Amino acid sequence: MTDTARQLYDRSLVIDGLQTCAWSREIFEEMRAGGLTMVNAASLLWENFSEGMAYVRQWERHFAENADLIMPIRSVDDIETAKATNRTGISIGWQNTSPLEDRLDYIRVFKLLGVNTMQLTYNTQNYSGAGYLERRDSGLTGFGHEVVEEMNRVGVLCDLSHVGDVTSVEVIAHSRKPVCISHVLPRALRDVKRNKPDHIFRACAEKGGVIGVSLFSPGLVVGNDSTIEDYLDAMTHVLDLVGEDHVAIGTDFSTGHPRPGPWLLWANRDKGYARKLTEFGNTTIRKPQGFARISETPNVAGAMLRRGWSERRVEKILGLNWMRVLRESWTPDP
Amino acid sequence: MTDTARQLYDRSLVIDGLQTCAWSREIFEEMRAGGLTMVNAASLLWENFSEGMAYVRQWERHFAENADLIMPIRSVDDIETAKATNRTGISIGWQNTSPLEDRLDYIRVFKLLGVNTMQLTYNTQNYSGAGYLERRDSGLTGFGHEVVEEMNRVGVLCDLSHVGDVTSVEVIAHSRKPVCISHVLPRALRDVKRNKPDHIFRACAEKGGVIGVSLFSPGLVVGNDSTIEDYLDAMTHVLDLVGEDHVAIGTDFSTGHPRPGPWLLWANRDKGYARKLTEFGNTTIRKPQGFARISETPNVAGAMLRRGWSERRVEKILGLNWMRVLRESWTPDP
Repeated sequence: MTDTARQLYDRSLVIDGLQTCAWSREIFEEMRAGGLTMVNAASLLWENFSEGMAYVRQWERHFAENADLIMPIRSVDDIETAKATNRTGISIGWQNTSPLEDRLDYIRVFKLLGVNTMQLTYNTQNYSGAGYLERRDSGLTGFGHEVVEEMNRVGVLCDLSHVGDVTSVEVIAHSRKPVCISHVLPRALRDVKRNKPDHIFRACAEKGGVIGVSLFSPGLVVGNDSTIEDYLDAMTHVLDLVGEDHVAIGTDFSTGHPRPGPWLLWANRDKGYARKLTEFGNTTIRKPQGFARISETPNVAGAMLRRGWSERRVEKILGLNWMRVLRESWTPDP
Repeated sequence: MTDTARQLYDRSLVIDGLQTCAWSREIFEEMRAGGLTMVNAASLLWENFSEGMAYVRQWERHFAENADLIMPIRSVDDIETAKATNRTGISIGWQNTSPLEDRLDYIRVFKLLGVNTMQLTYNTQNYSGAGYLERRDSGLTGFGHEVVEEMNRVGVLCDLSHVGDVTSVEVIAHSRKPVCISHVLPRALRDVKRNKPDHIFRACAEKGGVIGVSLFSPGLVVGNDSTIEDYLDAMTHVLDLVGEDHVAIGTDFSTGHPRPGPWLLWANRDKGYARKLTEFGNTTIRKPQGFARISETPNVAGAMLRRGWSERRVEKILGLNWMRVLRESWTPDP
């Protein structure tokens, strides 16, 4: 990487739109080595209310024990503080609204406890809508409309990454505030269900939202043989569609979970134990060469500059686009 | 009522496919006055796991305190015992699978605690499928397929009364055992969503199931002005469609709940507190004249005989059809 790229990276706010690691001090050290300003830490997939509470409490312990490396993020100002104090801000996120169970008022309860971002559904149907692996997708349910309204009201960002196509479109239409697709790849380049079609990227951008391009190799054109250049090709597709104000990074790093291993096998079954939904848990999945570890995140700045992208564009993709969407979506109604 | 009708009624097994009363000794006394052999007691609508447990435990108290009037039903043999001992058997039922939350294994847990019948969904979407008031119905979910399989395996009867049309069709297709529509009226006679179309009655019957014709006047042709003859007209429609082996009674008596009143307003909101789904909770709803109270159940025998229906047909409708379906559906797999 050139000095220019390194300097640009070091002065930028760098936000990773989603990681799903087995959290530990080693990972927080790697976040620091990678110069990350903030991570949406979203390893919660199928948990119910009490397990969702446990996820929050576990983070309280991580914050207490690793205060030299990480700090909790409750607001956009906290992200600036993390940058200024050379720590990685952790914003607690969920990849499912399962911990809400049937209670709308739990959205505010968890927001007050620091859960800033909630993916509406994981891979299957829940009370609010369909995940991308559900048999059919009948869209945002009546209850889901109320969930989105309450997220808007109390300031929780709604994430659509694993959400079904029909439900995604209806969330974007119904939300008063920008939403995100935190970790996703374009279906136009590789036609797999987990990738999203262009019309959903456009709708998300038109609502002021942001699309975090992910490193999940089964969604990249050449799969496990991908490099950071293939990753930027996917990003370029989204940039060409929606412009540089709506594209960002969402790595989906799952560092620390053995593959194959119990956590991934749990992740790949409905509700963690029922029917098997995918074989991702026991297949080999390699992140793109050059951006295969959290500590390699700085490489992306060099690769983007080599493509002739402006420094301004790179800053937006690294963090400023996330900052805009987080500011708009995390602010509660007055 | 003629002596013939009275004698026929008194020697018959009389099963009410669904009541949703505010249970009390007064109601158990009225069940005895009405000569009921068994009632599917299903006042549970939106409850979660712990509330579903509370519903079961409340019944344990009712059984202990009213053992002269009622007894718990765990099997078809228990129904014969109730008849022989002049008590009304109570089979605990649910109008939602919400108490299962996200756990398939709770189906067996609750079966062991005496919950014999579970309606797959109440009025809206849950993990298994759509209720009849959901915005759209995408059918039996992947999880719902597993729920039906587990109900079949452990011997829980699946009820489709408030279930959406598409989900209903798919449950019938997927179930290995007969299912029921415990309390329903024909849409062919009155085109309201809560009523069911002929093709679902036919499919239910072809699977060996049973259709309990209900007294819910908003589903009857002349609404609140209905009489027991209008009720039998609705039953005749179903009889003509599916034959006398698949028709029964499911009154939907909600005795003891003030109307308007808190329980009905709770029932009429999604999950008991969210958006309002119907105005049934604060509108006047009268049961058909002549069959307006639990104690008037014997009148139905007289009215059926007056139509020239055979004693055998009347016995089937009063109880034998329920007995057949309960025997087949309540028996666990070996």
